[in-house]
Amino acid sequence: MPVADASLRLMAQKLRRSSMRSTTQAGSGHPTTCMSSAEIASVLFFDELRFDPKDPSGQDADVFVLSKGHAAPLLWAALYEASAIEEDPITLRRYDSPLEGHPTPNSPWVRVATGSLGQGLCAAAGMAWTRKLDGTQARVYALLGDGEAAEGSVYEAAQFASYFKLDNLCAIVDVNRLGQSGATMYGHDLETYATRFRAFGWEAEVVDGHDVAALRAAFGRARATSGKPFALLAKTFKGKGVSFVEDKEGWHGRPFKAGEELEKALAEIGPADLKLTVEPRKYPAVAKPAAGAPALTPDYKLGQEVATREAYGTALAKLAKSSNAVVAIDGDTKNSTFSDRLKAVAPERFAEAFIAEQNMVGVALGMATEGKIPFASTFACFFTRAYDFIRMAAISKPAHLVLVGSHAGVSIGEDGASQMALEDLAMMRAILGATVLYPSDAVSAERLVETAANTPGIVYIRTSRPKTKVVYANDERFPVGGSKTLRSSGKDAVTVVGAGVTLHEALAAHATLAAEGIAIRVIDLYSLKPIDQATLLKAAAETRAILTVEDHSVAGGLGEAVAAAVSGRGRVEIVGVKDMPRSGTPSELMSEHGLDAAAIVAAVKRLLA
Amino acid sequence: MPVADASLRLMAQKLRRSSMRSTTQAGSGHPTTCMSSAEIASVLFFDELRFDPKDPSGQDADVFVLSKGHAAPLLWAALYEASAIEEDPITLRRYDSPLEGHPTPNSPWVRVATGSLGQGLCAAAGMAWTRKLDGTQARVYALLGDGEAAEGSVYEAAQFASYFKLDNLCAIVDVNRLGQSGATMYGHDLETYATRFRAFGWEAEVVDGHDVAALRAAFGRARATSGKPFALLAKTFKGKGVSFVEDKEGWHGRPFKAGEELEKALAEIGPADLKLTVEPRKYPAVAKPAAGAPALTPDYKLGQEVATREAYGTALAKLAKSSNAVVAIDGDTKNSTFSDRLKAVAPERFAEAFIAEQNMVGVALGMATEGKIPFASTFACFFTRAYDFIRMAAISKPAHLVLVGSHAGVSIGEDGASQMALEDLAMMRAILGATVLYPSDAVSAERLVETAANTPGIVYIRTSRPKTKVVYANDERFPVGGSKTLRSSGKDAVTVVGAGVTLHEALAAHATLAAEGIAIRVIDLYSLKPIDQATLLKAAAETRAILTVEDHSVAGGLGEAVAAAVSGRGRVEIVGVKDMPRSGTPSELMSEHGLDAAAIVAAVKRLLA
Repeated sequence: MPVADASLRLMAQKLRRSSMRSTTQAGSGHPTTCMSSAEIASVLFFDELRFDPKDPSGQDADVFVLSKGHAAPLLWAALYEASAIEEDPITLRRYDSPLEGHPTPNSPWVRVATGSLGQGLCAAAGMAWTRKLDGTQARVYALLGDGEAAEGSVYEAAQFASYFKLDNLCAIVDVNRLGQSGATMYGHDLETYATRFRAFGWEAEVVDGHDVAALRAAFGRARATSGKPFALLAKTFKGKGVSFVEDKEGWHGRPFKAGEELEKALAEIGPADLKLTVEPRKYPAVAKPAAGAPALTPDYKLGQEVATREAYGTALAKLAKSSNAVVAIDGDTKNSTFSDRLKAVAPERFAEAFIAEQNMVGVALGMATEGKIPFASTFACFFTRAYDFIRMAAISKPAHLVLVGSHAGVSIGEDGASQMALEDLAMMRAILGATVLYPSDAVSAERLVETAANTPGIVYIRTSRPKTKVVYANDERFPVGGSKTLRSSGKDAVTVVGAGVTLHEALAAHATLAAEGIAIRVIDLYSLKPIDQATLLKAAAETRAILTVEDHSVAGGLGEAVAAAVSGRGRVEIVGVKDMPRSGTPSELMSEHGLDAAAIVAAVKRLLA
Repeated sequence: MPVADASLRLMAQKLRRSSMRSTTQAGSGHPTTCMSSAEIASVLFFDELRFDPKDPSGQDADVFVLSKGHAAPLLWAALYEASAIEEDPITLRRYDSPLEGHPTPNSPWVRVATGSLGQGLCAAAGMAWTRKLDGTQARVYALLGDGEAAEGSVYEAAQFASYFKLDNLCAIVDVNRLGQSGATMYGHDLETYATRFRAFGWEAEVVDGHDVAALRAAFGRARATSGKPFALLAKTFKGKGVSFVEDKEGWHGRPFKAGEELEKALAEIGPADLKLTVEPRKYPAVAKPAAGAPALTPDYKLGQEVATREAYGTALAKLAKSSNAVVAIDGDTKNSTFSDRLKAVAPERFAEAFIAEQNMVGVALGMATEGKIPFASTFACFFTRAYDFIRMAAISKPAHLVLVGSHAGVSIGEDGASQMALEDLAMMRAILGATVLYPSDAVSAERLVETAANTPGIVYIRTSRPKTKVVYANDERFPVGGSKTLRSSGKDAVTVVGAGVTLHEALAAHATLAAEGIAIRVIDLYSLKPIDQATLLKAAAETRAILTVEDHSVAGGLGEAVAAAVSGRGRVEIVGVKDMPRSGTPSELMSEHGLDAAAIVAAVKRLLA
């Protein structure tokens, strides 16, 4: 029997009261943005969403993404009232509580961390895309704020969702008129938001966000809509229900003062004594075949010239054949990153994200929450576009998320600085918990792609544009945190550490120097994070100095990683890009920035002088 | 006398021929995307734009931004034909030519580097906003691609432009139907693009992009439109004019083969022998008062507790009073970053960017090209959203661009990881040529804000959320590349290097250790880049080890900067954030991550054990 409107109205008041109390208790947080969304949350959790409060997996069930993450207290209140969590929301923001200030997977009901706005809809679109792929009817809901609707990524997600006809996706925008520091751009002009969503291919309806009957009816129409995602633009009031804060500026991120102020506010809301039971509801289970373990075997000849980006594509196709869990997404660069090779063997598992890298990473994260092993690829420099999404993905702790950036460094040549990734290693190393890999030949590229698919969390792989010689046998293994010592003798004067294109320059420098009677050790640091400290310390102890050479900014990359790893126990000379590069041939640029064999030879001699 | 349509048509063919030849000569590049835009460029440069080919400053003249940067050969061709540049476009992409593969300021006609899509319109919006501020009638034009229109930042710029009624801004979208790796989302459905721009508050018209008469008429209507920016959606064909490439896939980023293929293509275009002279046209000069030098004097008492973010706001207001060139922009966080203090004293010089950080940085860059000293602020973590824009801004080499990120690190406390900047120092240090500053008290904050306004290029300032004690006298100076040794003696056992909140923990640790008879040196490393290597080397030589303590990821930040600076000449122990933080009080989190005084005391003792 459906729940009565009156009960949903009263539940909304109960959620309001909880959000007000918990933020006051915490001494920080955003009660008024919870108050504007209270009826939406009540209707979603106690009527619309089909889910089992005892099963946070979301399997065969509707899932909810709180894109406006600062309304976390409302989410905790709703989950608590639905008997989905046991922690009392009054523990909000406490060090010992899973109920954080913004949603994180410390609660199992949170699939993706939010709190940086404009990201939840992208992840939700990824979930919806994957649910279409898997053939389940279970739906995805995302609640956004109106201030949030200024983020361009919202429209990237919107176009993706309509392009792929994700009618299993429903967005609700809580248009409460007020941002953090003032009114939003459009205030209560709901039609502007609706027009935008329609312009991006959605069905869109304006609804009174405090009218539970209207909300229920709108959700019904959303559910019945075919071929298009559906957006509810809900007109609400920030701080709804408490006269001295409702629709007033200056109340963002400001809890009620404990005591009189809170009591007065709660009195205006009135009592809300009810308990609603969420009946477990699920969709018919969809039979999923066992995914299979992602595995491959490289097939190259020593000395063969293959770009690591191309080896990535070859590896990706092999992995896709070995495991149904492997999916790929690309930002209209699939013919350069070679991710089109997956598309060729498993077109249904390839999502074209077009030129919208933020949404690409958000969608990939959403795919990951559905049990996939997503590979997202574009030019390495364009991952800078998605850095906030990568940062938030790390907080989301996905089981798997592999990012593959091609065209790294000055060795791309003529296209010029705008296409050269010079910051990607620094940016990815700084991500807590991320693994950073950098293959130098086709064999290591394929092996590291395989490893990435089997490594938990976020893995970044940097590939190169130029062709490089195969230097490893097909059965060579490349464990995370390892390195390869390719040249070594009992009399090495200096150690040269390279990766990617610079490894080959180091090998050439080795040959040149050997002819002059100078022995150097050459290490392929294919795993930048974690780093093979033991091998580096050994090299530091056994040779006079370590010279690092990287096709990347000198700050935050390979060199500093090595300097930190051997600090106090060896000298590290860092060679990398210090000045803004320009167009030129790869060899001109490698020479100018001191990255080629000749420059390495000269640097080694300087260190020995 | 206006130029004849026939001449503009022929000039378009000439620009096509030039783009085809130069890319073939370079052996790389994107001729077909130049060919789709040829009539647009011809009409713009030889009819619509009012400028003086001898004056690249853009002063009192219309300016043009090639947002679809891969059409650079067309830009060089147009500038050459207009006698604005002397370099023959045939030198395209050569190491010794200013005519790079994508536009950069190596040509004085390029105000902002492009080549990462979706950025040019943001910068153009910033120019247009500033031109409104300065009262000039000179206009701004931006040419976008249709693939580019998938970037959410385009809609961030669009909403900004309509919100501020930038009717001096005209966007042209070259809808040639084809992206890099396949068809775009919407092909030749021009109305979808027009509907989007209208939904974002623009006047928008669909036009035949190969019909010079239609283009001229549309530009006329754009010029006559008041109160709204204007978008021309130009229907074009990629590779227009050459039968075997026109509207065909597989021709992105692919030049014609030298010899037969190129000759055949050129033959299809036909001869285009004409010379058009651009008559210098300018708008009435607008009298600009001398900007004044940005300067301030801090006014604090030692021991006073002030958050550096608040000192930033105070400083910004002072700078704005001292110099008309100082402008500010913020992403709806002005009451947290305290940039609202500039708004209070100079509201017309404050731009609210709402929650759209990519556009915020792009607009700031555009402001910079108009001679302003822009300060862009938001929470430090949200600058990750704009990393690609910051990267491209560095290539653009602005005279000034100051980014100020507040709420850095775990010391923000209860809001949780999503609001904690833990990667900002790594990301900003990796930017070539950027200056990275990190004040610890109100005096240094104000001084560094003043310094930033007077430092060329991109400057990043990291401010903190908690209040910290004033430790410097108001007349203390903080040069870029310096540091302050706050505690030192002849018998320092260890050096502790901190900045921001950790400096105060280091000072407290100093007191605790001093009471136990252990002397430590304490250095305030307020300038992370450039870094004060001399002082660090001295400390390394005079003490047993350097302990760095930072409220930031251990990778790429203060610690690795120090480790690299003293490599081989001292031991550096890096303390920073290694594991994903969560909600808690600042002191709980500082303790958990080993950043507080007690942890520093323990770490020093470990180093001495």
